[in-house]
Amino acid sequence: MLECKIFLAGNFITTDQKLDVTNKYTGRLFTQTFLADAKLLDKAISAAEKAKPACKDLSSHEKFAALKFIAEQLENKKAHLAKVLSIESGKPIVYAIAEIERAAQTFLIAAEECKRLPKEYMSLDWTPNGKGKEGIINYFPIGIVAGIAPFNFPLNLAVHKIAPAVAAGCPIILKPASTTPLSTLELANIIHETDLPKGMVSILPMDRKTGNLLVTDERISLLSFTGSPVIGWELKKQSGKKKVVLELGGNAGVIISKDVDLKKIIAKCITGAFAYSGQICIHAQRFIVHTDIFEEFLSLMKKETEKLLSGDPIKKETRISVMIDEENAKRVANWVTEAVAEGAILVCGGKRKKSFYEPTILTNTTSKMKVNTEEVFGPVICIEKYNGKIEDAVKKINDSKFGLQCGIFTDSVSELDHCFKNIEVGGIIHNDVPTLRFDQMPYGGIKESGLGREGVKYAIMDMLEAKILVK
Amino acid sequence: MLECKIFLAGNFITTDQKLDVTNKYTGRLFTQTFLADAKLLDKAISAAEKAKPACKDLSSHEKFAALKFIAEQLENKKAHLAKVLSIESGKPIVYAIAEIERAAQTFLIAAEECKRLPKEYMSLDWTPNGKGKEGIINYFPIGIVAGIAPFNFPLNLAVHKIAPAVAAGCPIILKPASTTPLSTLELANIIHETDLPKGMVSILPMDRKTGNLLVTDERISLLSFTGSPVIGWELKKQSGKKKVVLELGGNAGVIISKDVDLKKIIAKCITGAFAYSGQICIHAQRFIVHTDIFEEFLSLMKKETEKLLSGDPIKKETRISVMIDEENAKRVANWVTEAVAEGAILVCGGKRKKSFYEPTILTNTTSKMKVNTEEVFGPVICIEKYNGKIEDAVKKINDSKFGLQCGIFTDSVSELDHCFKNIEVGGIIHNDVPTLRFDQMPYGGIKESGLGREGVKYAIMDMLEAKILVK
Amino acid sequence: MLECKIFLAGNFITTDQKLDVTNKYTGRLFTQTFLADAKLLDKAISAAEKAKPACKDLSSHEKFAALKFIAEQLENKKAHLAKVLSIESGKPIVYAIAEIERAAQTFLIAAEECKRLPKEYMSLDWTPNGKGKEGIINYFPIGIVAGIAPFNFPLNLAVHKIAPAVAAGCPIILKPASTTPLSTLELANIIHETDLPKGMVSILPMDRKTGNLLVTDERISLLSFTGSPVIGWELKKQSGKKKVVLELGGNAGVIISKDVDLKKIIAKCITGAFAYSGQICIHAQRFIVHTDIFEEFLSLMKKETEKLLSGDPIKKETRISVMIDEENAKRVANWVTEAVAEGAILVCGGKRKKSFYEPTILTNTTSKMKVNTEEVFGPVICIEKYNGKIEDAVKKINDSKFGLQCGIFTDSVSELDHCFKNIEVGGIIHNDVPTLRFDQMPYGGIKESGLGREGVKYAIMDMLEAKILVK
Amino acid sequence: MLECKIFLAGNFITTDQKLDVTNKYTGRLFTQTFLADAKLLDKAISAAEKAKPACKDLSSHEKFAALKFIAEQLENKKAHLAKVLSIESGKPIVYAIAEIERAAQTFLIAAEECKRLPKEYMSLDWTPNGKGKEGIINYFPIGIVAGIAPFNFPLNLAVHKIAPAVAAGCPIILKPASTTPLSTLELANIIHETDLPKGMVSILPMDRKTGNLLVTDERISLLSFTGSPVIGWELKKQSGKKKVVLELGGNAGVIISKDVDLKKIIAKCITGAFAYSGQICIHAQRFIVHTDIFEEFLSLMKKETEKLLSGDPIKKETRISVMIDEENAKRVANWVTEAVAEGAILVCGGKRKKSFYEPTILTNTTSKMKVNTEEVFGPVICIEKYNGKIEDAVKKINDSKFGLQCGIFTDSVSELDHCFKNIEVGGIIHNDVPTLRFDQMPYGGIKESGLGREGVKYAIMDMLEAKILVK
Repeated sequence: MLECKIFLAGNFITTDQKLDVTNKYTGRLFTQTFLADAKLLDKAISAAEKAKPACKDLSSHEKFAALKFIAEQLENKKAHLAKVLSIESGKPIVYAIAEIERAAQTFLIAAEECKRLPKEYMSLDWTPNGKGKEGIINYFPIGIVAGIAPFNFPLNLAVHKIAPAVAAGCPIILKPASTTPLSTLELANIIHETDLPKGMVSILPMDRKTGNLLVTDERISLLSFTGSPVIGWELKKQSGKKKVVLELGGNAGVIISKDVDLKKIIAKCITGAFAYSGQICIHAQRFIVHTDIFEEFLSLMKKETEKLLSGDPIKKETRISVMIDEENAKRVANWVTEAVAEGAILVCGGKRKKSFYEPTILTNTTSKMKVNTEEVFGPVICIEKYNGKIEDAVKKINDSKFGLQCGIFTDSVSELDHCFKNIEVGGIIHNDVPTLRFDQMPYGGIKESGLGREGVKYAIMDMLEAKILVK
Repeated sequence: MLECKIFLAGNFITTDQKLDVTNKYTGRLFTQTFLADAKLLDKAISAAEKAKPACKDLSSHEKFAALKFIAEQLENKKAHLAKVLSIESGKPIVYAIAEIERAAQTFLIAAEECKRLPKEYMSLDWTPNGKGKEGIINYFPIGIVAGIAPFNFPLNLAVHKIAPAVAAGCPIILKPASTTPLSTLELANIIHETDLPKGMVSILPMDRKTGNLLVTDERISLLSFTGSPVIGWELKKQSGKKKVVLELGGNAGVIISKDVDLKKIIAKCITGAFAYSGQICIHAQRFIVHTDIFEEFLSLMKKETEKLLSGDPIKKETRISVMIDEENAKRVANWVTEAVAEGAILVCGGKRKKSFYEPTILTNTTSKMKVNTEEVFGPVICIEKYNGKIEDAVKKINDSKFGLQCGIFTDSVSELDHCFKNIEVGGIIHNDVPTLRFDQMPYGGIKESGLGREGVKYAIMDMLEAKILVK
Repeated sequence: MLECKIFLAGNFITTDQKLDVTNKYTGRLFTQTFLADAKLLDKAISAAEKAKPACKDLSSHEKFAALKFIAEQLENKKAHLAKVLSIESGKPIVYAIAEIERAAQTFLIAAEECKRLPKEYMSLDWTPNGKGKEGIINYFPIGIVAGIAPFNFPLNLAVHKIAPAVAAGCPIILKPASTTPLSTLELANIIHETDLPKGMVSILPMDRKTGNLLVTDERISLLSFTGSPVIGWELKKQSGKKKVVLELGGNAGVIISKDVDLKKIIAKCITGAFAYSGQICIHAQRFIVHTDIFEEFLSLMKKETEKLLSGDPIKKETRISVMIDEENAKRVANWVTEAVAEGAILVCGGKRKKSFYEPTILTNTTSKMKVNTEEVFGPVICIEKYNGKIEDAVKKINDSKFGLQCGIFTDSVSELDHCFKNIEVGGIIHNDVPTLRFDQMPYGGIKESGLGREGVKYAIMDMLEAKILVK
Repeated sequence: MLECKIFLAGNFITTDQKLDVTNKYTGRLFTQTFLADAKLLDKAISAAEKAKPACKDLSSHEKFAALKFIAEQLENKKAHLAKVLSIESGKPIVYAIAEIERAAQTFLIAAEECKRLPKEYMSLDWTPNGKGKEGIINYFPIGIVAGIAPFNFPLNLAVHKIAPAVAAGCPIILKPASTTPLSTLELANIIHETDLPKGMVSILPMDRKTGNLLVTDERISLLSFTGSPVIGWELKKQSGKKKVVLELGGNAGVIISKDVDLKKIIAKCITGAFAYSGQICIHAQRFIVHTDIFEEFLSLMKKETEKLLSGDPIKKETRISVMIDEENAKRVANWVTEAVAEGAILVCGGKRKKSFYEPTILTNTTSKMKVNTEEVFGPVICIEKYNGKIEDAVKKINDSKFGLQCGIFTDSVSELDHCFKNIEVGGIIHNDVPTLRFDQMPYGGIKESGLGREGVKYAIMDMLEAKILVK
């Protein structure tokens, strides 16, 4: 049996509580790792406390060297890491490879950004009493960061917390999802080879109760959580004096205007709809299509969806595989059944086999149905029409408690401007699905989709405190 | 009897609940105003909701025109406003005038900053899949802002919420302190003359229970609170999904190094120590003095303190007057008594007469005593020595749960650098007391002194949400 | 006879050389002013030298106060100033009023920008030998600025040199055009009322030979010239060690795509074509129109052009009046005659009466004809077609030695993107004529249209020198 | 005989004109390379013209990949390159190695900066007519860059032109110094391995007459020259319409205040004084020492100078070797002789042996003597005293036509502030010699020391043209 130690402040350790990680496709045990308990977590926090001065004193060169090394090693070990990630998560290998590449890119960006931490210099002589005065503003590490990462991008979404923390000079304790801790623990091995201070990084699987101590412990200055809206907002309440960043989900939409060449965009739409079975925060869940091309789009999507190759995620040709667990597949199945009962039309898909759920297209849904209005986090999309006026499409998109990203296919300047000004989200993606994200861009939602922005530079900003010197 | 209406979404109204505002020096009733109840607050929030689109669509020219007009009117009505402020707060008129001028300056800065709201434009082609892609990032109003302002700078600390909100395009509901609502309500009259959308600004005195709805109502997107640490941190817990900015207090310190000409700095030290009876978040509470000049500094401070003219705040020559109420004067008296009992030495002051408390100097205090370690918010200072090494002084300053600002008098580059790097505060003031603040600079504390930064540009930033257009 | 003194380092003086300024419409003498000779210019330069330290030491508050005062006075005296400007230049009063307003705006922007001069603060620890090092970069006034302004916007284009110079803390010597010095000398009266150091501003009409000393004198650090390309590039050669900014002209174009509602845009096109008889650097000289709408556009333009009211510029209803002098009117007439001889078709206009030249439309021109390829600086436009592909339109626009601004009317994202990327100019104006300029935006040309950018912030930047403190 | 081809637009070629490169220490022929003539240069310019669109279209990822590859290869080949550089220039190998490392760092910075090219996004609705308008400002490559590099840092000063040009997307033609072309031609081999467009980079030794075509050819948009002031300013005159950046020399000074521990700083002073025999633009030529410590400093410097190991530059222990040629050594010898004749006191050194000149200390010099007032560019320094007041020291430093950098050793905040505000240079180096430069910082002089700033980000800025899209 493979055994994978967990990473406590520079030491690889085992604990009494074993954690089984299954191959999500076969359902068989893949590797055993360990859960940290409250006592070990306390040790990690104490070590982080102790490491704070050393972390703060790291020169940008030292941080750059470590971050760049990590980025290079991720590239070097890409094949191995992608395999682990694919197995632990059920994610098709092509997407797993892309995720490793993005994680490497995220570290590279952090390497570059740590040389460019915000610094300001301003005149203060705007009033007579300020004559001769100036302000020099430096940004210092905020303190210990707690990161909680989800199962769906087990590596890169953890990296979006770890890399900025290192760049900012903050110790970090990262809790990976219990279902998919292995790729992050592989990363720990790479981090361990750098010269970063011991105690700067801990990566510890925990049960939810222990993990909650990350939320409540007052020695921690920032909680950065990526996960489901319900849990995220609950954590905010318990977070005490600490700053909180929430990266939650949504029911992202796409608008498809009339002047679009559907054949050219269909591949993007299929990827946005069904990549990793829709278990993506910016999964393209709602397609709002110009009434004149609605039927054509629907039939094209159906055709392409039915071509999607399902199977073992480890195979290069697989495009869709199992969901993270059967519980979620059942939940999705129920939502679809419920929707159909309420009047939705099933265009294709709709069947479940254990934790596999077919890529599914619905139409005639309403914002009263869960498949439309809640975060489906599964391979289900709703394709609906709008009356041809962009205002109508935008209204439909905004009819949601969420607001993460939105795609818009159009060549009209006025339509695009209208969308940018009026769609209530954190990101508008022109001529692409909402599922697109570049790791340097500000990323995050409004409304119930989150609080704050990630994207390396923006995440770093949240991990720093301004201090002004008035001279 | 003077009667002052309250300002609900563009209407001046009265309510059933009268609020007496006393002349703090005479203790007699000065003016009656009104408290808003939950129903009226709900009306204000609804009006703000309705005003959101109009507020968002304001051009920078329209916001500029309104903000500049307000700044000019504050200057024009300075004499009257300062008198009202002085009477309602007991603040010596020289300081009241300075506060009106700062409030005008705060509006002027907001007028200028609204033309310069953050906007970003970035390349996204850092990876092959980004070829040809760019990001355009605009910042949109976050939604409704709730502002809660304290009694001690009743106008300018309210303005630090109202002016940025207008600049950002956010409706705001401001709750002034119940003891000092009048100067803010005078401001309402000026705001009313502008072309800002009705419903953009409401200024409503409320009791604490009603005020708490500002914290819990989910239609409000940002809570900006200035006040005491205990209350501030409690509000954060109840704030639901909204963003929270806390500007709390502290026990600010000053370091006085050996090479300083004490005669030149003593006036600044006296102002930092006793202006408005120390009821200032950045009141210079702890003086940490080089051992070689400690005795000289102590005797100089005693001499100058004893010269301070007390009396009616409305008189030009008055430098110290009553505290906000007798309850606080008693609290301060108790803390001093307690400290002396525990070994502190009373250098001067220490007597109370109703709500007046003498300017008081203690020495031989420790960080176990409330006068040293809690926010005294009264005319009491502790003068202590350090061993001559800057590290020792910094350690003493950092031996506090608070971290707002700190002064340092020195001509040594290495001492100043050490202070800037190591003192745990939001602002280091070189060759001046920590009590110095310019309205454009980032201002706010770390540790238990707060969360986030004010200062017009920084406050605006918190009232905006980034939205990226990926093209 | 009215007499207008000239402004030498804070003194209003007369000289031996009188300069007659005519009413351009009547041709009669309007006011006499004076030319400075080499000796007086030397005095102005010496005074500027002497004023350098005082100018550099101005706080932003002091500069702000002066610049804001000037802006307000320009607004206050708008009616008078516009009249002077209209008479001395022949510019219709509606445009003259707009110019005064813009000059006030330019000063206001400078007032705001002087508080926000560039300042940088950067880490220098990117390599091991930089450990602990930081750089603080402040920008200091470059030294004396020489400004040479043209006749066509006699006030605002001078202000685009004076206002930034004051904001930057640089003394400036401004040479107005000899034909139109009066509005700038009126400005001198306002400047004189401020507290700016004597010697900071001189406004001196000069003949070309004396003016050339501004170019060659090595005490001057920056030459900022606005005028004709031929002269501008010649000055660069003679400029010695000084920095040079050239704001020259061009033969700006407009592209009109197919999807445009011509009725909605025609008023803008007429203004771009004939405002101030085309004597504008960004005069819309070349219209490149989609072949499908070419005929309709041509006939609409003809119709609207023929409606233009000509007459005394001082009258509110006048839209077109005399050119600056008969020499230029003759030159334009010759170019049109020449073009027609070479195959151009005269659509309307084409007649001259002394210094008045009719608003004239040509078509069938080629880039061999002066009316098309040189800067016509008169009320003449060429309307040509493109084949419907945006690449063709862009090619036609780029077939020019100039590159200042270009307008593009379209609702197509891809067309607009193509234009932005490929048109060789300093500014692309979407859905408007190239004649649009906002005073805060970066403005200036590439190719033979100039060197560097104006626009307050950008002009200031050119007047500053970076100095880094490595700590 | 070694033969080194030259690099014309992606091809390694030979020409009719051979160029002998000697081993500067032995005086013997080291390698033969070639001179390009006017015809070949024309070919390079044509190729650059042709490459412009491809260079402009490079994504930041493509530029990043090439620049990073070059940086890595420079590190990989460091030993070899340093040897070539040491032999061709006579530079001690320790300094040659440092130069290769810096060149690698310069490419690395350019790799990072090309992703962060300036881009602006601003509101234009500051006036009523701007309602709804915004400006998007992108920066496009300026066109072909001509770089002329000096002999003293033959690699890194060429790299400070090549790396920014690639980052900016500009083709570049680089003329290395004829005495030291080899290390740059080695670089060409590395560049050749990248995917950069053919024609983007040419590296061509030329005689001065041919090189002058780089200055006059109007197809070239920017001339970036590093070299002697006399030549630099002359080139500016001939530069036609192109933009010009001049990085020239000076007679940099150092101020040593009283409170300094001389033993701790002496090593830095010796390096600043005699590294590469003072053939450095920021060679510490003038030491201005507090009168109280003047004698001690003088004797310490003498002692340490006499310890400097001279010899073959290729040996690790060598700290001083030959100058670039005998002509320069003679010139320096003459200047010293002249100074002594005029009253200067020779403290040590002063002897010449062929192209070797001893490290030489003078005192009692005046600003009339060439050794003090001209750029000595040799191993000669002047040590003088100031009266103890910082104003006196600053006055002495400013008594120079040059203004590149200045060092200041002090722990006094007020002295340092005075220096930063008042010393007329591009850079103040605190607690170090003026010889310090980091490759990311803005670097360049005022007065006769140059025009514009290098430092990767700043050099890139000069190679770009702003284009605004007004929407």
